[in-house]
Amino acid sequence: MKPFVHIVQVYYEDTDHSGVVYHSNYFKYFERAREHLLGVDTLVRLWREEGIGFVVYRASAKYREGAVFGDRLEIRPTVARASDYRALFTQDVWRPGGQKALVEGQIELCCVNRDRQLVRLPKLVWARVLD
Amino acid sequence: MKPFVHIVQVYYEDTDHSGVVYHSNYFKYFERAREHLLGVDTLVRLWREEGIGFVVYRASAKYREGAVFGDRLEIRPTVARASDYRALFTQDVWRPGGQKALVEGQIELCCVNRDRQLVRLPKLVWARVLD
Amino acid sequence: MKPFVHIVQVYYEDTDHSGVVYHSNYFKYFERAREHLLGVDTLVRLWREEGIGFVVYRASAKYREGAVFGDRLEIRPTVARASDYRALFTQDVWRPGGQKALVEGQIELCCVNRDRQLVRLPKLVWARVLD
Amino acid sequence: MKPFVHIVQVYYEDTDHSGVVYHSNYFKYFERAREHLLGVDTLVRLWREEGIGFVVYRASAKYREGAVFGDRLEIRPTVARASDYRALFTQDVWRPGGQKALVEGQIELCCVNRDRQLVRLPKLVWARVLD
Repeated sequence: MKPFVHIVQVYYEDTDHSGVVYHSNYFKYFERAREHLLGVDTLVRLWREEGIGFVVYRASAKYREGAVFGDRLEIRPTVARASDYRALFTQDVWRPGGQKALVEGQIELCCVNRDRQLVRLPKLVWARVLD
Repeated sequence: MKPFVHIVQVYYEDTDHSGVVYHSNYFKYFERAREHLLGVDTLVRLWREEGIGFVVYRASAKYREGAVFGDRLEIRPTVARASDYRALFTQDVWRPGGQKALVEGQIELCCVNRDRQLVRLPKLVWARVLD
Repeated sequence: MKPFVHIVQVYYEDTDHSGVVYHSNYFKYFERAREHLLGVDTLVRLWREEGIGFVVYRASAKYREGAVFGDRLEIRPTVARASDYRALFTQDVWRPGGQKALVEGQIELCCVNRDRQLVRLPKLVWARVLD
Repeated sequence: MKPFVHIVQVYYEDTDHSGVVYHSNYFKYFERAREHLLGVDTLVRLWREEGIGFVVYRASAKYREGAVFGDRLEIRPTVARASDYRALFTQDVWRPGGQKALVEGQIELCCVNRDRQLVRLPKLVWARVLD
């Protein structure tokens, strides 16, 4: 898989009164980066045609430095197959040209159908990111 | 209808880097107050059993003063029937004991079924707030 | 001023359990579009060097149709000087190639300094959008 | 420390189009519960008078079951002193009377001053929660 970068612009909405990005918002950035990595069109088709959606079952982040209003962040996700049912994403947040990630995230996902029953990770998704 | 007040505590999550509550968050406060005014249990039953949900079709707010971290705000909603299909809520935001509303909101709602077709406002809702 | 378009991708985070974008999120989209129209770098410089920020004092939206997960929306802002202290933005939300705006927004802004005192709209901003 | 429970009502704003609470929102619930555990008034005074704020430097959650619109959740935080500079919160999410936590969270916090320099955890905070 070639390196993938998703850019996030930090707006007023992202920050809190302490002056930096509110901690839980990085999990939104991670989701955006994952969706672009997997392919938004693919995810939409899976959802509409097969009723398959993604569920986060574990999420963690380590925060080293706060991003601020006006930052243009790079979210760099990688993905590995943890099992036939689970995918593990590593998703770090960088300032362009920075020496160190501002935030390091790990997200574990599974897929569910319309009845919220666990299903195998769709081949379509894996084909794209693992080849 | 007797006066109704819904209390909202302002947390880190509500503020932005300018030091006050981010403007769009008041629309969330308005929704919370509306739901408690109408009765959360009633709304949940309508949604689960009849597939009826609420849709905002017009929303406006006038901002006079910014609320800050630690404020404990009073959201004071009133509601009027605009037609068989539309309800009009006035929802103002006060500091306890304040002389003037910090924010003044107006929200117009309608109801839709599972296919997002317009339906009449459910009697259950009106009985509660207009009697 | 030449027409300006800001693209917003709709993610899981933007939607609610009724299946469409949660109504207050459009106000976030409007802010993003405004910031890009005015120039993020300019706004950051104003904030850091002069302590000047933007405050919304009136916001309204009319909702015609709900956007859904996977939509790639066009936010089309225009701006007019309402006075030396106020700017009025019209910000509509379109699906590419659509016949009608999904949402129509109007936002009135003013500028404040670090003490939250009203100041004139900075020339820098006007030069960019009105020339 | 006596057991502490903070109640969170799940509104439209909290859910996403898959029908359950969006995963990052639990981190907001955790923050709210922490603030009430520590005392909102105390935190406000620390912030305004001494410029001391809280910074999350590690956050994780394990999701077992999704909460839905209308749920009234119990957030049950406990706190331990990890060092003079760090506090460790365990924060689980329950349905009232449930057999198992829906979500289990762990948050590590430190305190910073106005210059975002690390400072010792304020005694005021510890006195309240550890006695």
